[in-house]
Amino acid sequence: MQPDLLNHAHIAQLSRLFRRHSPLVHCMTNDVVQTFTANVLLAAGASPAMVIDVEEAPQFAALADALLINVGTLTRPRAAAMRAAVASANAAGRPWALDPVAVGALTLRSDFCRELVALKPAAIRGNASEILALAGMSAGGRGVDTTDSAAAAPAARALAQQLATVVAVTGEVDYITDGQRTLAAAGGSPLMTKVVGTGCSLSALVAGACALPGDRLLNVAATCGLVKYAGGAAAAGSRGPGSFVAAFLDTLYQEVKA
Amino acid sequence: MQPDLLNHAHIAQLSRLFRRHSPLVHCMTNDVVQTFTANVLLAAGASPAMVIDVEEAPQFAALADALLINVGTLTRPRAAAMRAAVASANAAGRPWALDPVAVGALTLRSDFCRELVALKPAAIRGNASEILALAGMSAGGRGVDTTDSAAAAPAARALAQQLATVVAVTGEVDYITDGQRTLAAAGGSPLMTKVVGTGCSLSALVAGACALPGDRLLNVAATCGLVKYAGGAAAAGSRGPGSFVAAFLDTLYQEVKA
Amino acid sequence: MQPDLLNHAHIAQLSRLFRRHSPLVHCMTNDVVQTFTANVLLAAGASPAMVIDVEEAPQFAALADALLINVGTLTRPRAAAMRAAVASANAAGRPWALDPVAVGALTLRSDFCRELVALKPAAIRGNASEILALAGMSAGGRGVDTTDSAAAAPAARALAQQLATVVAVTGEVDYITDGQRTLAAAGGSPLMTKVVGTGCSLSALVAGACALPGDRLLNVAATCGLVKYAGGAAAAGSRGPGSFVAAFLDTLYQEVKA
Repeated sequence: MQPDLLNHAHIAQLSRLFRRHSPLVHCMTNDVVQTFTANVLLAAGASPAMVIDVEEAPQFAALADALLINVGTLTRPRAAAMRAAVASANAAGRPWALDPVAVGALTLRSDFCRELVALKPAAIRGNASEILALAGMSAGGRGVDTTDSAAAAPAARALAQQLATVVAVTGEVDYITDGQRTLAAAGGSPLMTKVVGTGCSLSALVAGACALPGDRLLNVAATCGLVKYAGGAAAAGSRGPGSFVAAFLDTLYQEVKA
Repeated sequence: MQPDLLNHAHIAQLSRLFRRHSPLVHCMTNDVVQTFTANVLLAAGASPAMVIDVEEAPQFAALADALLINVGTLTRPRAAAMRAAVASANAAGRPWALDPVAVGALTLRSDFCRELVALKPAAIRGNASEILALAGMSAGGRGVDTTDSAAAAPAARALAQQLATVVAVTGEVDYITDGQRTLAAAGGSPLMTKVVGTGCSLSALVAGACALPGDRLLNVAATCGLVKYAGGAAAAGSRGPGSFVAAFLDTLYQEVKA
Repeated sequence: MQPDLLNHAHIAQLSRLFRRHSPLVHCMTNDVVQTFTANVLLAAGASPAMVIDVEEAPQFAALADALLINVGTLTRPRAAAMRAAVASANAAGRPWALDPVAVGALTLRSDFCRELVALKPAAIRGNASEILALAGMSAGGRGVDTTDSAAAAPAARALAQQLATVVAVTGEVDYITDGQRTLAAAGGSPLMTKVVGTGCSLSALVAGACALPGDRLLNVAATCGLVKYAGGAAAAGSRGPGSFVAAFLDTLYQEVKA
């Protein structure tokens, strides 16, 4: 099954939607990528807020437009707060997205992700090894990124079908599927793998995209496409990963021309 | 009552004071802005240190020149450490500043901020909705920034009078008041709202300013003015929020010419 | 005893080794420097992963190539996770490095560092006051950086001898010693002290260097030299600490020419 390639018009439209609706994204994410995630959301036109306490997180999840759960630096207290936030988001009808960082390699987060996928995430974004592990097709490696997203696309489709959700498996090409249709987003730059948080912040945008009007699959796919586009444009003007970070945020900040 | 507009000489003088005294600022702040806050303090000539443990924080609060309490990613253990640090700072005669992030919208931090304001902060820095919530004039919104600082200036004055402290309500124009006099700082750039931590790091500088010699109201106001100045200058040479961050730190690093 | 000055060929060779072996460095580090540490490791060719839970950290420490313990924002739960990770790394034969941030000034971390040094770190990296405190020759100050690394070089040698480890005391000149030989790395820039995390991220690279083939003392020394070199080159093209950060990462990303 050949996936459909996203076109530039979809990316431009998504870029406008983010600015028009400015979704407030409640991020429960790992300690390493907090600042970058917030800055990516702000640059794209969304609004970030990090609320992590077990009492406050469920309160806030009902107020925000979308919730991100990223298990990168999971601890038991953090898991308890995430569990409460997901329950609250579900009760309030707010979409939430899962980033299953390094699932498969470590027990606590693998058990927790297994629990989470049963709670109806609106979208899941991971790299190839994470999606394979989540789909039960692999025990995972050392938690490091693999880039063979094409090899994980069938697992993504199966997972999306089984959970009735949208799954994005990202890598050199991103594949985004609802279990029926699959879209592909190409572009980007190898420099994106030399900066921490490009994947994690994409997941935050994906959470926000789930709160936008229109087709969820297309919105999530166009979000992946937006990040590919910004990454490619930023890399073209960069001397390395340091200047890339600034250029990436500057590019996201510009509305994409149709 | 018309506030007095800060002049550039005050900002230049404050910039020199920070370099000359290099206050050591103990930051107990949220997870999202730690790096940026430390880099802003360093660029301005101050010294940052983040110590968060419930045993170590009170030890360190007595050694540092000033303490910042920012409730952005509050948890119960963090609140306990902050409470101990404030008690220690007060006992040692060290000034401390409060940044009541998103107070009003969430129960744990609202209760905690109510407790904290009774403990004699040397200064409070917040946006309009936070200062309104703290002054009991509003139940707050979703915790997101509002920019109508002029509308919150009367609440800031009332709060400053009631607590015998300095209150800075920041937005398009910043108003800084001790309940009697009010100063205003203008300038800045909308780009500052597209970068996470500009407000939070200003609060860290405000804490440091409370440890500088001279008039506290004027020092806090000039700190707001310094950040407005640096933000405006940085924005002028930036292509977006990514290049803005670097230019902002570079500008703060230069001593302001009188 | 005159230390031998590192030459550029050693730095170039180390730069190649990092790219060739790409050690996976498990970082248990402070909240302030997580992003920068990850980006420094990525730029230099290594692979970062932050895993902090008391159950997951020992699992991961056995999978990673090296472990970094940095006590900058220590808490009791974090200390328990670090203790478990060190035990696991030792059992699995993985090297680990210690960054004793602000040891001497604060009780919890001082006690913990005393416990850790008995657990056979492969390397220790600290500034002058930290190495002096660790060697029991000083009670430390306020935890802020001192730069008189030459004065601490004898303490570093004594400590290295006593613990049979490599100790790097960094400052205007870095001294790296195994208790017998001492190497010195010069260069760098004062701008490096105006950016948070340059020392902490060096410690992460030092942990990675302990997993590289060849002479450990020389590899750790060349890592210090690499960071001096990148800092000096980056400062030459920077207008302040903001542009320095980007230039530093861009420089590290380039393989050093022999």
